[in-house]
Amino acid sequence: MNKEEIANWFSGLQSTICNQLEIADGNGKFQKDAWTRPEGGGGLSRVIINGNIIEKGGVNFSAVSGPTPKKIIQALQIPQEDFFATGVSIVLHPKNPFVPIIHMNVRYFEMESGNYWFGGGIDLTPHYINTEDARNFHSGLKSVCDQFDENWYKKYKQWADDYFFLSHRNETRGVGGIFFDRLNESNTKLSKPELFHFVQQVGLQFTQLYSPLMSTHGDTPYGDAETHWQSLRRSRYVEFNLLHDKGTKFGIDTNGRTESILMSMPPSASWEYDYTPSKNSEEEKTQILLRKGIDWINA
Amino acid sequence: MNKEEIANWFSGLQSTICNQLEIADGNGKFQKDAWTRPEGGGGLSRVIINGNIIEKGGVNFSAVSGPTPKKIIQALQIPQEDFFATGVSIVLHPKNPFVPIIHMNVRYFEMESGNYWFGGGIDLTPHYINTEDARNFHSGLKSVCDQFDENWYKKYKQWADDYFFLSHRNETRGVGGIFFDRLNESNTKLSKPELFHFVQQVGLQFTQLYSPLMSTHGDTPYGDAETHWQSLRRSRYVEFNLLHDKGTKFGIDTNGRTESILMSMPPSASWEYDYTPSKNSEEEKTQILLRKGIDWINA
Repeated sequence: MNKEEIANWFSGLQSTICNQLEIADGNGKFQKDAWTRPEGGGGLSRVIINGNIIEKGGVNFSAVSGPTPKKIIQALQIPQEDFFATGVSIVLHPKNPFVPIIHMNVRYFEMESGNYWFGGGIDLTPHYINTEDARNFHSGLKSVCDQFDENWYKKYKQWADDYFFLSHRNETRGVGGIFFDRLNESNTKLSKPELFHFVQQVGLQFTQLYSPLMSTHGDTPYGDAETHWQSLRRSRYVEFNLLHDKGTKFGIDTNGRTESILMSMPPSASWEYDYTPSKNSEEEKTQILLRKGIDWINA
Repeated sequence: MNKEEIANWFSGLQSTICNQLEIADGNGKFQKDAWTRPEGGGGLSRVIINGNIIEKGGVNFSAVSGPTPKKIIQALQIPQEDFFATGVSIVLHPKNPFVPIIHMNVRYFEMESGNYWFGGGIDLTPHYINTEDARNFHSGLKSVCDQFDENWYKKYKQWADDYFFLSHRNETRGVGGIFFDRLNESNTKLSKPELFHFVQQVGLQFTQLYSPLMSTHGDTPYGDAETHWQSLRRSRYVEFNLLHDKGTKFGIDTNGRTESILMSMPPSASWEYDYTPSKNSEEEKTQILLRKGIDWINA
């Protein structure tokens, strides 16, 4: 199982997910933009706009290679050598404020010297937190993790809580999910094919986790108050991605294609100085739940 | 002239500018929020919302002190000691797309050991570039610089071109202005009082440069096309501030007050995948001018 096979599988995953999402959306179509990176490799960006349910979303595949950029060398504290990185990244911004924003990334990284690792993550950002949705989402992720290592869900759920965290706001991005990085044979009990299988299962779980949320909440009535709150929550999503997200930083630092990296931005966002939701409102209930360490499965 | 005197002057500058802007706006009033920083010092945030001309803007004063945060120590490569930093920061987002966004910052930094420096910058971000406005703006800045050192305007104008630059978009934030940092007796020909005088002159120039733009363009008619473009340009402003701006990073890294730091965010912003202005449009004309090295005074 070499890097080309892994990249090919990711490329296929992109197609599968786009097809599934087009069916779930019922109207939107993913356009395609192939791009190449001057220093090596490239990708295929697939973007959906103004669907029935998805207002703006991207499913990005890339396989990039070449000399490792200096900033990456420093960040990972590795010697100067060539790198290869491939993966699929998804962010979907739904129109209806009662449908959550979702993000997933699965990736494989290999150095010229042969060192490799898998990484990934998936997290849910509801504008309005629904504890049943959060429970189902986390249960689905736990069942994937449990097939491989019974400690993983707990570990990777906590990693997601720590990663998808807006330290400058002291709040989580949403209800979290799982996050894992630098998995290889030496720091897990699994072989490379088993680790790849785990990442594949995470990737294949994506639409199964998200399409029920599209169908359940896509037609829920809403008004200006909900759109207003959605717009404020979207600005927090912008803040996380531009201030904290390592994937965005990696993309910018490796001279990736900006439009593909910033595909994660919402269609619109609002900032209001010192906004506080009113007491006992649905918005306040969500705000209160934006914290680490909630056991969503048993909440 | 000690740090308290400098901080007091900056605090007075904040009042002066707020008063001038309220008059120029004709309707908006600045609210006040005093805040303290757990590790030492604090500030006063003044925010204006839904004025006649200014849709959202902030004029922030702060004077913070205490042990220098690790990230700052590393960035500046200085020994661990206490720091003191004071300054005024302004960002104004006008309602009318024909009025430019403006930013100014003047600051003073002092280490426990006695090392000090002044810094600052002012730059203009028109949604639609008007070369006459850019010329007046730069001429005003040049006349301030020329009072102190005839090489400064050229040097600090270039510094602004390099600083207010979105490398991931390969475009400048706007028409630039001036930027300078770490000025002290050892790297300029000026004494500390003279350097302070320069920074004062920059600060006092602010309203003189901006209020004519408010009065000239505040009533210019516009429609959806202009608002749409304004919203896209505002998203570039967000990208600069969250991805590149050192002041924002410094604020976040020193555990500053988030609402005061992110006062610079626009009221709203939009992202459209791979947006390109139409050929020969006013929007395209602006896009083409978002580059370094333009001699606005003689353009």
